[in-house]
Amino acid sequence: MSRAPAQDVADWWQDSHRQYADGRLVFGGRDLASFATGRETPFFVYSAERVRANLERLINALDAARMPHRIFYAIKANRFAPLVERMRSWNLCGIDTCSPAEVLYALDRGFAQTDMLFTGHAVSNADLDVLAAHPGVHINCDAISTIRRLGERCPGREIGIRINPQVGAGYHAGVHYAGAKPSKFGLYPDRFEEALSVAASFGMRVTQLHFHFGYGYLTQDLPRLSAALEASAWFMDRCPDLETVDIGGGLGTRITADREALDLEAWAALIASHLQPRGLKVHLEPGDYLMKDAGVLVCEVNTVEEKAGVMFAGLNAGLNLQNLWAYYQTPFIVAPLQRRSGALRTYTVTGNINEAIDILAEDIDLPPLAEADLLALMNAGGYGSSSASNHCMRGRFDEYLID
Amino acid sequence: MSRAPAQDVADWWQDSHRQYADGRLVFGGRDLASFATGRETPFFVYSAERVRANLERLINALDAARMPHRIFYAIKANRFAPLVERMRSWNLCGIDTCSPAEVLYALDRGFAQTDMLFTGHAVSNADLDVLAAHPGVHINCDAISTIRRLGERCPGREIGIRINPQVGAGYHAGVHYAGAKPSKFGLYPDRFEEALSVAASFGMRVTQLHFHFGYGYLTQDLPRLSAALEASAWFMDRCPDLETVDIGGGLGTRITADREALDLEAWAALIASHLQPRGLKVHLEPGDYLMKDAGVLVCEVNTVEEKAGVMFAGLNAGLNLQNLWAYYQTPFIVAPLQRRSGALRTYTVTGNINEAIDILAEDIDLPPLAEADLLALMNAGGYGSSSASNHCMRGRFDEYLID
Repeated sequence: MSRAPAQDVADWWQDSHRQYADGRLVFGGRDLASFATGRETPFFVYSAERVRANLERLINALDAARMPHRIFYAIKANRFAPLVERMRSWNLCGIDTCSPAEVLYALDRGFAQTDMLFTGHAVSNADLDVLAAHPGVHINCDAISTIRRLGERCPGREIGIRINPQVGAGYHAGVHYAGAKPSKFGLYPDRFEEALSVAASFGMRVTQLHFHFGYGYLTQDLPRLSAALEASAWFMDRCPDLETVDIGGGLGTRITADREALDLEAWAALIASHLQPRGLKVHLEPGDYLMKDAGVLVCEVNTVEEKAGVMFAGLNAGLNLQNLWAYYQTPFIVAPLQRRSGALRTYTVTGNINEAIDILAEDIDLPPLAEADLLALMNAGGYGSSSASNHCMRGRFDEYLID
Repeated sequence: MSRAPAQDVADWWQDSHRQYADGRLVFGGRDLASFATGRETPFFVYSAERVRANLERLINALDAARMPHRIFYAIKANRFAPLVERMRSWNLCGIDTCSPAEVLYALDRGFAQTDMLFTGHAVSNADLDVLAAHPGVHINCDAISTIRRLGERCPGREIGIRINPQVGAGYHAGVHYAGAKPSKFGLYPDRFEEALSVAASFGMRVTQLHFHFGYGYLTQDLPRLSAALEASAWFMDRCPDLETVDIGGGLGTRITADREALDLEAWAALIASHLQPRGLKVHLEPGDYLMKDAGVLVCEVNTVEEKAGVMFAGLNAGLNLQNLWAYYQTPFIVAPLQRRSGALRTYTVTGNINEAIDILAEDIDLPPLAEADLLALMNAGGYGSSSASNHCMRGRFDEYLID
C-alpha cells in the first residue's frame, strides 16, 4: 500500500486552535516558533482560550439537554497558578480537590469553600482535620472509615459517597477505575447499607453519589457509561436525600486518528436520560479533558539517529515532565514547530531520562527532523507539570499562559 | 492447603540488617517504631551500614575472582546529600551520572571529576558544553551524534561507547534495556564501525565499552548476562585501545520469596571468564542494588477496609514517592513497625494518590493491620526521593540517614 500524502497522515488533529500555516505551527493564535525565541526549552505553554472552549463545550451540551449541572475542575491535572486564577475569573466552574493542600491552594487562587469538592482516597486523620476546618467543602467519602472519622469531627455535615459501579472504560486497561476487578475506589453494594447507617449515626445526610469510571472515554465507550449509570441506580434508590450524582471526570480527548471524538450531545442525552426522571443534578470533575489539548510541551530535538533500523529522535525532556506514555502508553501527538519539506518517515521519540520506558511516541509518522529542531507534544497540558519530578536531575521547565 | 505459619510466609526477607525482635521491626540496628516517635510520616530512612555492606559485597566478589574493577554509584537512584557524602568518605566508589546537573551535584558532594562517569541518552549541546568544561569526567557516548558533537568540542578526549548487546533481563519486560526489540540505548553492530570512524576523525580513543542490559537481574538471569558479554565480544574485537568494559547496573535484589538472590560468586566468575583473557578491567554502575534494601519508606495506615471481598490498607503515601510498582509492578516488601498478633491475612496496600495504578503491593499476606499503624515499605531506598513528585499535592516527605 502506498503511503498516504502528508496532509492525510499527520494532520488529522488540526483545527482552528492548532494548525500549520505556511509550515509553521500555530497554537492558540500564536506562532510557536516565534514564541519560543529567547525562551529556554523545555517549556509548557497553555492556551486559556482553549481551556475555556473545552469548558463551555461541556456546559453547552448539558444546557442543551436541559440537564442541571455544575462543573468542578480537577485541579490535580494542572495547578499552574495563572491558569487556575484565570479560570476563577470566568466563574464557570468550581474545583475538585483530592488533598487538603489542594483545598488550601484553590482558596489561595480565589475559589470559595463552597466552590469545592473533595474526593480523596486513603484519607488520613490529618487530612480530615483540615477538611473539618473548612465546612463549606463538599466531601465525597471513599470508604466507611472516612465516613466514620469525618462524622466524629463534623456530625451533621452533608456528604457524598463514592461508589464503585464495577464498569470501566478508557484509553488503557490500567485506567479502568471501576472494572470487574475490585479497585481501591469507592463503596461496593456489599457494604453500602452499612455506609449509610454509619452516616446516619452521625446525623449526616447523603446528598451526593460519586463515581469515576475511567480515564479517556470516547463515543465508543458511551454504552459503558450508560451501564455505570444503570448500576448506580441501585445506590440512588437507597439515598432518600440524594440531590446530585457526580460522574467524576475521565472524558476523553481524541489522541489518535482511529478513534472518534466524544459525542457530547449523545453524552449529555445519556446522562439526562438517567438523572432527569429522578430530578437529580449532575456534577462533573473534568481535569485532563479541559487541559490535555490546551497545553503543549515544547522541547528541542537533540539527537536524530537510526539504530538497528529504527529512527530515533531524542528530546531534552522526558517522562519526568510528562509520564502518561510511561504509565499508560497513551501516545502524544508530536508536531515540529517548523515543518521541513520531504516525505514523512517513521520515528520513535525518546526522552532524556535513563529509563527504557522513557518513550514519548513510538513509530509515528513525521516530516523529516533534524537536530536542534523544536517539537511540540501537542496534548501535554494535563498531568505534566503537576506531577513532574526531578528524576535524573533533569526536572527544569518553565510554564507560560497565552490568551 | 493449610496456610503456613506466619514466620514462614512473611519473613523470608529477614536478616541481620532487618528483622523483627519481640514483634518490633529493627532496621539497621534501630527499632523503627521508636525512631518514628515525633517524626512526621511519610519519611525515608536509609542505613549507611547497609549501603556499605552492599558495596563491599560487590567489591569482595570481584576481588575474590581476581577481576580488576571499579564501581561507580548511579546517583540517579538516590541523591540524598548526607548519604552521598558518606559514600564519598568511604572512598570505595565513584559516581555514575546521566545529566550535567548530576555531575555538578556530585562535585559538590566531594567527588572529583575523575571519579565520575557520564552515561546519558539524548544528550543536548547544552549538556555537552558542561561536560566539555569537565575534562576529567569519562563520557560513554550513546549515539554517533553524541560522539560527533563531543568531538567538535573536545577533540582527542578518551571516550567510551555505549553498545546494545540485544540481550536483556530483569524484574519486568519493560526494563529489558537491550532485548530483541531495538531500544533507544546504545550503538548496534549496524553502525558501530561508523561510530569508531567518527571518533577517530576527532582523534578520540575508545577506551571503554558500556552496556546495561536490564533492571533487577538475579541468578536465574546469569546465562543472559553471559550472552550479553558474548555479544559484546564482537564490539571489543574492534576497539584496539579498549581498557575497560562497563557492564552498567541492573543487579537485582531479592524482592519476592520465590526467586533466589544473585549469586555474586558465579556473577564475578562469569565476568572474569569473559574479560580476564583480554586483560580488561570491569566498571560497574549499581544504583538500586546499593540502595533498594538500604532504605525504607515509613508510612501511616489510615484506612483498613474490606471492599468487594478484597481487604485494602490505605497509606499516607503513594506512587508519587515511590513509583516502581506503578511503572514496573515490582512489589514492595511491606512490614508493620509493630506486629499485631493474629492470623495473617491478605491485603492490597494502596497509596493516597487518585490514580488506579497507585498500588504499593497487591494480595500480600500480612499480620492484622489497624488504622494508625505504621508500616515500612522495606525495599524503597532506590528511585524514591530522587524521582518523587508533588502529584495531588501530596509530595511532602522527610529523609534520614542512620548509622
